[in-house]
Amino acid sequence: MFDRVWLNAHLATMNDGGLGLIEDGAVAARGGQIAWVGPRAALPGPAAETIDCHGAWILPGLIDCHTHLVFGGDRADEFERRLAGEDYAAILAAGGGILSTVRATRAASESALIATAMPRLNALLAEGVTTVEIKSGYGLEQEAELRQLRAARRLGAARPVSVVTTLLAAHAVPPEYKGRSADYAKLVAEEILPAARHLADAVDVFHDPLAFNDAETRLVLDAARRLRLPVKLHGDQHGDVGSAALGASYGALSVDHLEHANAAGLAAMGRAGTTAVLLPGATYFLREATKPGIAAMREAGVRMALSTDLNPGSSPARSLLLMLNLGCTLFRLTVAEALRGVTVNAAAALGLGDRGRLAPGLRCDLALFRIARPAELCYWIGGNPCIGRVLEGIAHA
Amino acid sequence: MFDRVWLNAHLATMNDGGLGLIEDGAVAARGGQIAWVGPRAALPGPAAETIDCHGAWILPGLIDCHTHLVFGGDRADEFERRLAGEDYAAILAAGGGILSTVRATRAASESALIATAMPRLNALLAEGVTTVEIKSGYGLEQEAELRQLRAARRLGAARPVSVVTTLLAAHAVPPEYKGRSADYAKLVAEEILPAARHLADAVDVFHDPLAFNDAETRLVLDAARRLRLPVKLHGDQHGDVGSAALGASYGALSVDHLEHANAAGLAAMGRAGTTAVLLPGATYFLREATKPGIAAMREAGVRMALSTDLNPGSSPARSLLLMLNLGCTLFRLTVAEALRGVTVNAAAALGLGDRGRLAPGLRCDLALFRIARPAELCYWIGGNPCIGRVLEGIAHA
Ligand SMILES: [Zn+2]
Ligand SMILES: [Zn+2]
Repeated sequence: MFDRVWLNAHLATMNDGGLGLIEDGAVAARGGQIAWVGPRAALPGPAAETIDCHGAWILPGLIDCHTHLVFGGDRADEFERRLAGEDYAAILAAGGGILSTVRATRAASESALIATAMPRLNALLAEGVTTVEIKSGYGLEQEAELRQLRAARRLGAARPVSVVTTLLAAHAVPPEYKGRSADYAKLVAEEILPAARHLADAVDVFHDPLAFNDAETRLVLDAARRLRLPVKLHGDQHGDVGSAALGASYGALSVDHLEHANAAGLAAMGRAGTTAVLLPGATYFLREATKPGIAAMREAGVRMALSTDLNPGSSPARSLLLMLNLGCTLFRLTVAEALRGVTVNAAAALGLGDRGRLAPGLRCDLALFRIARPAELCYWIGGNPCIGRVLEGIAHA
Repeated sequence: MFDRVWLNAHLATMNDGGLGLIEDGAVAARGGQIAWVGPRAALPGPAAETIDCHGAWILPGLIDCHTHLVFGGDRADEFERRLAGEDYAAILAAGGGILSTVRATRAASESALIATAMPRLNALLAEGVTTVEIKSGYGLEQEAELRQLRAARRLGAARPVSVVTTLLAAHAVPPEYKGRSADYAKLVAEEILPAARHLADAVDVFHDPLAFNDAETRLVLDAARRLRLPVKLHGDQHGDVGSAALGASYGALSVDHLEHANAAGLAAMGRAGTTAVLLPGATYFLREATKPGIAAMREAGVRMALSTDLNPGSSPARSLLLMLNLGCTLFRLTVAEALRGVTVNAAAALGLGDRGRLAPGLRCDLALFRIARPAELCYWIGGNPCIGRVLEGIAHA
């Protein structure tokens, strides 16, 4: 006897390396897990509750595996001023850019951070997201970093969504440490990271020509390793600094961005099973000419995930469905690559083996869409065909 | 005594050539029109009903002035196949491209067209759109063109929105007229256009290297002129064929696309008061390197509108808010240009002097947004801050 069964639906299971399509399928749940998936005609047993999906498509609940959605303020004013012709260097000199977000985040209480993040989170959930990763990285000092992580955890408790937290204290060098990035990396490794260990599911470092160098990055990654926290990198975004190879050598869950990654590094990622997280929102918003090397990733067998990078500076993107379109349009991902990028491969980027596909034993996290075929999720620009979400077998609006 | 007054709101009136901001303002309606707009402190009289907007921003109801949202089928399958590496020429040869939409549209009943268009229309309305233009152009034969226009009119009757229809029978050469585009233009001018005269508010022609040439275009525009129907063009999209100057010489309401328009043509549009309708969704989706000459338009004093171009082939865009972001990001429009492009200038593109600004005597069509400043409407990528729409003084969800 199943708890619940979803019928009269088509399934994109993400099994067997592709979309794993089953037309006229059924999904059965028991105890919050998927108990059975297959063609409706083969459904083995009765269920306490039967849900008619009226021909909708069911996908694994979508996973947004890279966001910075907890932050103070926004940068709409800066966006407006730059379009009006103001010089960005002048805006930065006047305290704009990431440091304005750091100031606003430091000044915000935990409940203020939750209140401003809530509509952003709700926008993601409305499109079928059931798991979202949230990074710190705008506090850049112990208390403010911990406050971001606590706010993230509380968002997960307040709303029907699974929240995964990542400590990104090494996101930028805080103003107090200007010119002393190595000292700040040491602080992160020796003090902030140990203090955050029970609030963070993983540790991330911005390894980039504009941020932390090799030695500083290793300092933080080694500290994470000692605490047995999984690691990931923002890497090779503004130049090839070898992030791909570095991440692979640490067995990172993911290296994210990778616009300038070299082929040897990508090959190392493929061998290490490190996922590449593609962030087309940033490519689009920053009007970057250099795109990540999708062909090289394919060749190296690198798993590709796709995410909003939701953040106030380089990707104020509140729609994961739109990232499907951007990924296909800008990076020429196939429909299967894009959809696997927000399900099974996004789960891999978070080290979560219990979700991301429709298969017995996995969490029964589902997203239901009123569409005629999965490609529609990638094809349309805007509009939201999500008609339901299921978390651990329970339906939510 | 006013019928209704909106208080505790900030206004972007679009008056005086800019955003026309009024903080802590009020809007009063009487008889479906705006009766008074200004700072709340100066509100002259009482109202039968008072609505507290809780600090929201009020803009004129948004206007999407260029859509093809009534059509049969979609092209998600084609999108998927192209990403999978199939050759576009082969897809076309196999009956894909616009002709597949023509086949599906011809085969669809009026109520089928309405049913498939409805969710697209609803997506626009949910973001604050109160007026939408809908073109024909996928029938390419008299009955199917009229059916599209009737479906468009009925959508306007079914939902709280003002629908403006445009006959675009000269959108492409139908298969029956292959190689005989002049004959088809003659059919449009002499038969389809007169038959559609009471269903169409304007007439449009695709004047382009890939579509109708000068003589064919003039044939249709002259016929429209004889019937006293206003005209507009899809122009200079795939090459400079002088659409800007041609449109200006006919006193067209608008010329739309204009990626390859020349400066003299744009100057003529400025003098003629012809609006340029910018369609960044198509630029984005087609990955067009050539962008419309915004600097030349500014210099020539050309009014710029901004629209989704919602269509299945080159811009499957169901979000006008996203076009604000695309217009700013890809074309570097200012926030004021973008927002005027979906309000006052979009009204101009449709020849509607009764809307598009918040001013006494105009229709009381409003869009309410939960934002801290109007720039947020351009800044965010996805997410929908619209919390209400008002049509002729009546609130709608
Ligand atoms: Zn990021
Ligand atoms: Zn068009």
